[in-house]
Amino acid sequence: MSTSEAREPRSGVTRRAVLTAGGAAAVGAVIATSRGAGAATQTGSIPFFGKHQGGIVTPAQGHLALGVFTVTTPDRQVLKELLSEWGRAARRLTVGLPLQEIYDGSYPPSDTGEALGLGAANLTLTFGYGPSLFDSRFGLAARRPVALVDLPPFDGDELDPAYTGGDLCVQACADDPQVAFHAIRSLAQLGLGSVELHALQVGSGRTSATTSDQRSARNLLGFKDGTNNLRSGDDALLKRWLWVGERDDQRWMTGGTYLVARRIRMNLSTWSSTPLTVQESVIGRKRDSGAPLTGTREHDKANFQALDPHGFPVIPLGAHIRVAAPETNGGVHLLRRGYNFFDGVDERTGNLNAGLLFICFQRDPVKQFTALQGDLARSDNLSQYITHVGSGVFACPPGIGPNDDLGASLFT
Amino acid sequence: MSTSEAREPRSGVTRRAVLTAGGAAAVGAVIATSRGAGAATQTGSIPFFGKHQGGIVTPAQGHLALGVFTVTTPDRQVLKELLSEWGRAARRLTVGLPLQEIYDGSYPPSDTGEALGLGAANLTLTFGYGPSLFDSRFGLAARRPVALVDLPPFDGDELDPAYTGGDLCVQACADDPQVAFHAIRSLAQLGLGSVELHALQVGSGRTSATTSDQRSARNLLGFKDGTNNLRSGDDALLKRWLWVGERDDQRWMTGGTYLVARRIRMNLSTWSSTPLTVQESVIGRKRDSGAPLTGTREHDKANFQALDPHGFPVIPLGAHIRVAAPETNGGVHLLRRGYNFFDGVDERTGNLNAGLLFICFQRDPVKQFTALQGDLARSDNLSQYITHVGSGVFACPPGIGPNDDLGASLFT
Repeated sequence: MSTSEAREPRSGVTRRAVLTAGGAAAVGAVIATSRGAGAATQTGSIPFFGKHQGGIVTPAQGHLALGVFTVTTPDRQVLKELLSEWGRAARRLTVGLPLQEIYDGSYPPSDTGEALGLGAANLTLTFGYGPSLFDSRFGLAARRPVALVDLPPFDGDELDPAYTGGDLCVQACADDPQVAFHAIRSLAQLGLGSVELHALQVGSGRTSATTSDQRSARNLLGFKDGTNNLRSGDDALLKRWLWVGERDDQRWMTGGTYLVARRIRMNLSTWSSTPLTVQESVIGRKRDSGAPLTGTREHDKANFQALDPHGFPVIPLGAHIRVAAPETNGGVHLLRRGYNFFDGVDERTGNLNAGLLFICFQRDPVKQFTALQGDLARSDNLSQYITHVGSGVFACPPGIGPNDDLGASLFT
Repeated sequence: MSTSEAREPRSGVTRRAVLTAGGAAAVGAVIATSRGAGAATQTGSIPFFGKHQGGIVTPAQGHLALGVFTVTTPDRQVLKELLSEWGRAARRLTVGLPLQEIYDGSYPPSDTGEALGLGAANLTLTFGYGPSLFDSRFGLAARRPVALVDLPPFDGDELDPAYTGGDLCVQACADDPQVAFHAIRSLAQLGLGSVELHALQVGSGRTSATTSDQRSARNLLGFKDGTNNLRSGDDALLKRWLWVGERDDQRWMTGGTYLVARRIRMNLSTWSSTPLTVQESVIGRKRDSGAPLTGTREHDKANFQALDPHGFPVIPLGAHIRVAAPETNGGVHLLRRGYNFFDGVDERTGNLNAGLLFICFQRDPVKQFTALQGDLARSDNLSQYITHVGSGVFACPPGIGPNDDLGASLFT
């Protein structure tokens, strides 16, 4: 019997107890001795521990599963323990290990098994707390950051409660969709009786590069997306616009950030029947190259002053890239990290139910996403082709070290 | 101006006319001169032309988009022309080309653009005709194969009309989900006014190997799936069980096959709370290794005669692999090619809406799928954990050559 087997009891224990008993020390041992179904395919892994959480400036993986949970336990201690347990699960999942290595067949297996053999697939898990977590239930009201408030209604919003709000969120990103799904399912499984999965949204085909060498991908409008995004190497901008600083109001959030998720349904049939030049003037870029209408290459800087021979702006006043650009919105930057979704045919309309799971990270959602989206909802010509149908905002605490508990900073 | 540009008119033409004008000859030229946004990433491509259609014995790609269409035109000639056009589109899409290379900006672009730059990603498109296509509308009643009839109801079916039936189906499989989605969207776009997209189901994480060197993947029950599947190299079995022979009743189907699609929702919360030994006895295999309960390795042959010390069968009488095995079902084989789906949370139950898009191919669905599923629905212990919620059967004609029209064999 190997060291790891000796450390993990074989029988008569609940799945939660087993995972807890394994603990941090066992993880190293299990990695060293992993075998059989637990032996991971050699796919990449991204460290779970660090100053910041993974899945934020991490080069965007190909697939997303976004889980949003409602806390059903009224017990603060139960919630605290669940977060600790989620942290321990995350360190296993992000190295491609199942929740539990050894099973007693007379109990349900703690790991649901569908990711066995798929490896880590560069899985990242990014945890966030919604505004509602800081209500009266858990004694956390005084720890609520000023910036963590429900997003206001915006012009044109048609929010579906099924995709809106939530006490907790977990963004799982991976190179394999089944690995991302398995991670959210595993956390839901561990939280049975304490939390309920409110929504699970899956997406693929990242639309936003987060490193300078990632190619911009295309959204379902056919246009490159993410060209003018913050990049993982833009340290000064990231410090200014992404990470919560130590002088911000809640010290426990230092090194953290805020996640905003918007489910954006695209009216693809209307868009597809729009002439290409109109599409390009709505976006402000050429479709094929991704260049701004004033340039020839994708990364050419847009010239918002340029006029055409008739004296009209080459990039229209309502063009998406003009309204969204830091140059015209008071300098606001966001780190976008979106994924496309395709959810079949809408039975009511016969149209494709598809669009963009827009996710962005920022230091202050009130001053960044909310300010910007207010402008977009009013002035962006793209608004007539898209509808926001889901919404959430979450405080993502900083990363943790190998000896820390997830959630400890919030609760201490 | 390149040869390909000279061949494709720039203005004043409908998207359909442009595609037709390009024709087969232009495809080669376009490939030779593709550039800019049309230049594909170097991902693999699978020939569209051949004796059989692609996507059947093709090594299973990672992602599926299954489009099912209702024909809305009453006009036989319009349907015939649409199929020809779909064939021309398929030969472009399967080499990673957009529907149209050159755009007149004053018209909507024929290609919706979201797959530009993604390459062919080993896309295959597999076309099929549903039983309803052979009703009185198009004068095809005499060409309906005997084997092409709606599947009968099975015990436990809870079929949702949204995922059931259909006049035409197109199975798009690719290594990139956006390429598969784009293909179905493109065909829907080309068919505007003639066909309507009835359903679009997407899946990933193939569950069924189709070559001997593809590893069996796991379904969402956590078990390896596809171990005992037909393989692309099993020529005698494929001839007997997969491809329609020339003495079968409809000559136009020679070299074709029949696709059966079943949307199978898995009751994952019930399954997850079932002890591992029970799960393994329901399937008849060990979860980690995939070995039959009478063996130690995945590809060990199951011994259905073996008894345990108490005189009970080691592989229970209702075990899934026993009921499904050719040894016990009269020798029937199927070529399975399934994908997992994850469609969020079921609002009514709070459970995950996830499971298996079961797809199989066979020479005669009445004698193969229907016979087998009748047994499974009655005797398979797995039935209590799964529910069939969608169903379709389609005749997939043989492949075509570079000078043939898709649909020509059906209509001549």
